[in-house]
Amino acid sequence: MNKLKQLFADLEPAIADIVDQPGSPRAVYEPISYILSLGGKRIRPAMVLAAYKLYQEKYSDDVMHVAQAVEMFHNFTLLHDDIMDNSPLRRGQETAHVKWDEATAILSGDLLQIEVYEKLAEVGNVEILKLFNAMARELCEGQMNDMQFEQTEEVSNHAYLDMIRQKTAVLLGFCLQAGALLGGASSNDAQKLYNLGIYIGLSFQLMDDYLDSFGETAKVGKRIGGDILEKKKTYLWNEMWNNLDTHGKDEAIKMYSHSEHAIITFIKSKMDETGAKVSTLQKAEEYSEKSSDVLRDLNSIGDKEYLEQILEMLASRES
Amino acid sequence: MNKLKQLFADLEPAIADIVDQPGSPRAVYEPISYILSLGGKRIRPAMVLAAYKLYQEKYSDDVMHVAQAVEMFHNFTLLHDDIMDNSPLRRGQETAHVKWDEATAILSGDLLQIEVYEKLAEVGNVEILKLFNAMARELCEGQMNDMQFEQTEEVSNHAYLDMIRQKTAVLLGFCLQAGALLGGASSNDAQKLYNLGIYIGLSFQLMDDYLDSFGETAKVGKRIGGDILEKKKTYLWNEMWNNLDTHGKDEAIKMYSHSEHAIITFIKSKMDETGAKVSTLQKAEEYSEKSSDVLRDLNSIGDKEYLEQILEMLASRES
Repeated sequence: MNKLKQLFADLEPAIADIVDQPGSPRAVYEPISYILSLGGKRIRPAMVLAAYKLYQEKYSDDVMHVAQAVEMFHNFTLLHDDIMDNSPLRRGQETAHVKWDEATAILSGDLLQIEVYEKLAEVGNVEILKLFNAMARELCEGQMNDMQFEQTEEVSNHAYLDMIRQKTAVLLGFCLQAGALLGGASSNDAQKLYNLGIYIGLSFQLMDDYLDSFGETAKVGKRIGGDILEKKKTYLWNEMWNNLDTHGKDEAIKMYSHSEHAIITFIKSKMDETGAKVSTLQKAEEYSEKSSDVLRDLNSIGDKEYLEQILEMLASRES
Repeated sequence: MNKLKQLFADLEPAIADIVDQPGSPRAVYEPISYILSLGGKRIRPAMVLAAYKLYQEKYSDDVMHVAQAVEMFHNFTLLHDDIMDNSPLRRGQETAHVKWDEATAILSGDLLQIEVYEKLAEVGNVEILKLFNAMARELCEGQMNDMQFEQTEEVSNHAYLDMIRQKTAVLLGFCLQAGALLGGASSNDAQKLYNLGIYIGLSFQLMDDYLDSFGETAKVGKRIGGDILEKKKTYLWNEMWNNLDTHGKDEAIKMYSHSEHAIITFIKSKMDETGAKVSTLQKAEEYSEKSSDVLRDLNSIGDKEYLEQILEMLASRES
């Protein structure tokens, strides 16, 4: 994983630069600095650079600006999503709308979004700007679908996968596509890398859902079973539900009047018995393999190892 | 005012086009369509076109896209400001966060902001994109200053005027600057038109504050005296407060334990007696004259009448 370590080291000054928010009034800049400093995997900017490395050796200013833009945009969505979802914690710390207030978190998010476009304006590439806009539009649509699904009794696997494609995968697709285009990829190859990003995103989210029920608290860093308690209609849930007979469904529904521990234990056993656990892992694996296939078949003139190592890292994660 | 009528007629298809929001899921598009359909003066897109008319006769697609973008951006700020300010009504109708919910209004606002950048990407002019970003950043800073001033006992006239410059005037400055640049103005002349927009904005907001206390309900379309009841530290308020002696200030403070009607009547009488009413009107007039001076001294090859008529319309408004 030496190359990946190098990639993250290369990113550090660019990340430090966006964490630093010297503007005034401080009240609107501090929450931006705060959310950006909470950390996270910085996987999105790393993907921009890794895609660029498929075509170029030395980074350009432009590719660093796009790397900054995607990390800022990701954090903008976190700032606003945390308000919409009423989340008290983010990476173990108070969310911005709790630490300050909702009005501040809304406004700081709006400003962060403008800063994203400042970075994109620095690049001055209208094609990339348009691709970004199309991606950002889909992401908003995905967030609305996600919120609406919470009020919906049954969500098909098809609808669920399309929602996580919009909410999670399109941004990863954009990261690779934009990095590749800036490196000089043909639009055909950039499109393949977009698709690769979609596969990674779908696999990533399916694993996220899996770990939410079957991960280890110590590794995942949060309480296990949240999705189960909320009856979240994930692929994992659907695969269980659709394979329960009427009696099994009744049992599951009744279980929700018991303790949280009892609910989680019962539903996890059903996810196991019905094969939902295995089929979710298989689905995640299937997308992960598709992403590797795309990369293997790609004719690139540069170094594939950066992106290969990102795929390995994501495939082997336990958190 | 025939030319102005023509200008607004020219705008109509472009406005109808942005009110129409055919995307899916409907839940995130309907609030955008709703806020854009509530009307308003459409003064910002009209200013874009009027500045363009200083240099060109026939509209370009680009200038129409920028006209759409500024109207959408203005409505984006309204969507989010109404949440931040907890406003139940907008133009006599329910605000979006009341009609739907906060999460929906936040997300629809975010999407509307992305649509603004889609319009700007259509234009593909990086200079205008950068000017827009700089303006939008200032507007966010102004909104934060406005919110912070609510918690502040004394706000200087200097700080107040700078806040309304950021919150209201910079967008009007951008409208004229961008319209002029698209028409082919020199950057020097575009800067003069930006300044003209700043003067209009300051004059506009001072008149707004004046009408909030001294307008007629029937004409203004809202209850008179809101700012007074909130003790909003406007220029009008400051001019009164700074000219009250200790006894007068005590009297004013004590009055706030009385009925709303009594408070409003008393404070208005003090605004009159201290000369605050007159000096606010004078200040608005001063900026209005400055804007006319800039326009008169401008060497433009096209038609000045459109912008002249907009200045007249704004100067004579009673609502």
